Amino acid sequence: MVDVFAFLIEPLPAGDAVTPLAGTFREVDAREPALRVGELSTQRGDGIFETVAVINGYAQEVEAHLARLQRSAALCDLPAPHLPQWRAVVAQAVAALPRSGEFALRMVLSRGVEHGPAPTAWLTVAPSADFAGAREWGIRVVTLERGYAHDLAERAPWLLLGAKTLSYAVNMAAIREARRRGADDVIFVSSDGFVLEGPTSTVILRFGAQIVTPRPSASILHGTTQLSLFEHLQAQDTDSIYRDVPVADLVRADAAWLVSSVRLAAPITAIDDTPLPTRPDETAAFNEYLRSPRD
Amino acid sequence: MVDVFAFLIEPLPAGDAVTPLAGTFREVDAREPALRVGELSTQRGDGIFETVAVINGYAQEVEAHLARLQRSAALCDLPAPHLPQWRAVVAQAVAALPRSGEFALRMVLSRGVEHGPAPTAWLTVAPSADFAGAREWGIRVVTLERGYAHDLAERAPWLLLGAKTLSYAVNMAAIREARRRGADDVIFVSSDGFVLEGPTSTVILRFGAQIVTPRPSASILHGTTQLSLFEHLQAQDTDSIYRDVPVADLVRADAAWLVSSVRLAAPITAIDDTPLPTRPDETAAFNEYLRSPRD
Repeated sequence: MVDVFAFLIEPLPAGDAVTPLAGTFREVDAREPALRVGELSTQRGDGIFETVAVINGYAQEVEAHLARLQRSAALCDLPAPHLPQWRAVVAQAVAALPRSGEFALRMVLSRGVEHGPAPTAWLTVAPSADFAGAREWGIRVVTLERGYAHDLAERAPWLLLGAKTLSYAVNMAAIREARRRGADDVIFVSSDGFVLEGPTSTVILRFGAQIVTPRPSASILHGTTQLSLFEHLQAQDTDSIYRDVPVADLVRADAAWLVSSVRLAAPITAIDDTPLPTRPDETAAFNEYLRSPRD
Repeated sequence: MVDVFAFLIEPLPAGDAVTPLAGTFREVDAREPALRVGELSTQRGDGIFETVAVINGYAQEVEAHLARLQRSAALCDLPAPHLPQWRAVVAQAVAALPRSGEFALRMVLSRGVEHGPAPTAWLTVAPSADFAGAREWGIRVVTLERGYAHDLAERAPWLLLGAKTLSYAVNMAAIREARRRGADDVIFVSSDGFVLEGPTSTVILRFGAQIVTPRPSASILHGTTQLSLFEHLQAQDTDSIYRDVPVADLVRADAAWLVSSVRLAAPITAIDDTPLPTRPDETAAFNEYLRSPRD
């Protein structure tokens, strides 16, 4: 297991020339101070992030994560990220990792230091937690109210519902609430009775021959792992669709998963103490695909 | 104008002995790195804060801010703050400030570094922005939907609606939206049609002889400045009450203010382009009180 390491990045404007990039970021010791107390990321949770899995030396779905970083930046009025710079930092980080094992690579773009001239950015890498149990034996989830109507995002863009911001205190509090209730994770539900998402994951359901996920135009984040899995399923002619899912449908599912970049597909064994059927072979197939190199 | 300065604090457990405190915090150069990239405050907006005004050498309402820091910590499952330690850091910071002028002192309590053993904490001091114009000439506000029902907080504590967390990205986005609309600030309104709060302030309204503010049991933060002003008004036998305020009542107000710790009372001159009457003498009296030493 390698130690956590990190790169500090001087974010370039999106339009800047591509070379030379090497001098625009540098490795730092993650155990040492690297950020100032005036950081708006820390004062206000004011910034955006992406978490990319690095599996056996391969960074998964980097372009999908960069595309979402771009969308988050636009929603948050942050300068557009300089994608070649991010690709260069990711490549250098991945080159420093062993060819086997699973790691979580996190990109952070902050609004910068208060009254400072420019955004700040960094990238960290840490070994993944061991999710073998969650992938094989599954997770128990509770439904928790998110407080929003499922169609709120479009009419209230200042709520940043489609952006992956650093303001995750509620997401973390929801997971603590699940643990208090003897569960492992959460499915957020809307005030008007629809399934939204997990605090750090996307909901995938099977109803008969059909795979379903809530519409990403709802007040949720479009999951990169869900997107990748749907491409794979559609290539196999598996019927997989986006639609609004009433909360009452959850316990009628023939199987359900929470999918995310690093934990991958975790089968749901119970929702609010109601047991749910699982499909171990299908879960194994999902995770085999999700652990294979993906772009 | 003094430079920004900062203290890094090793947070003590709430029950620990009071002395010696001096070795548990130290001044750091705010221009130099002081925080690690693994900070959960920066990764997840996972921590709480308070902003205290220091006016002419006096830190305003420190105990009210510490009481709210305690409540926020409890709501967020953070260790209870060691209040004597915080008082000692505040006292040392204030002693370093000039006897005149206005400063913003910010206390931050973070969940700490990921997988770290303990929370982290720090305090920063910076000169206040110049709010003379806002206090005298007022501010234009827009109403923006917050997405929540006004009675949500009690049934969904994981949404942390009564806690002052570092996850303020939405608050900042709302202020940017106001600027786009040619206004200065925001009044958030609930999905069920009630007045909530400003992104960084409390709403105070005058209707005839009565001063009104939304109930703090609604899904809003209880404002320390509003609380202090209400104590002052009640001592003067001014009728001042908490109640639910329907959004439609806003433009019927005889005067309205946003109050907050550092900007103090800013009279509202227009709401969504509807002009509002102002009461310059009353505003001046509010700010004279709010600028006087208060406990």
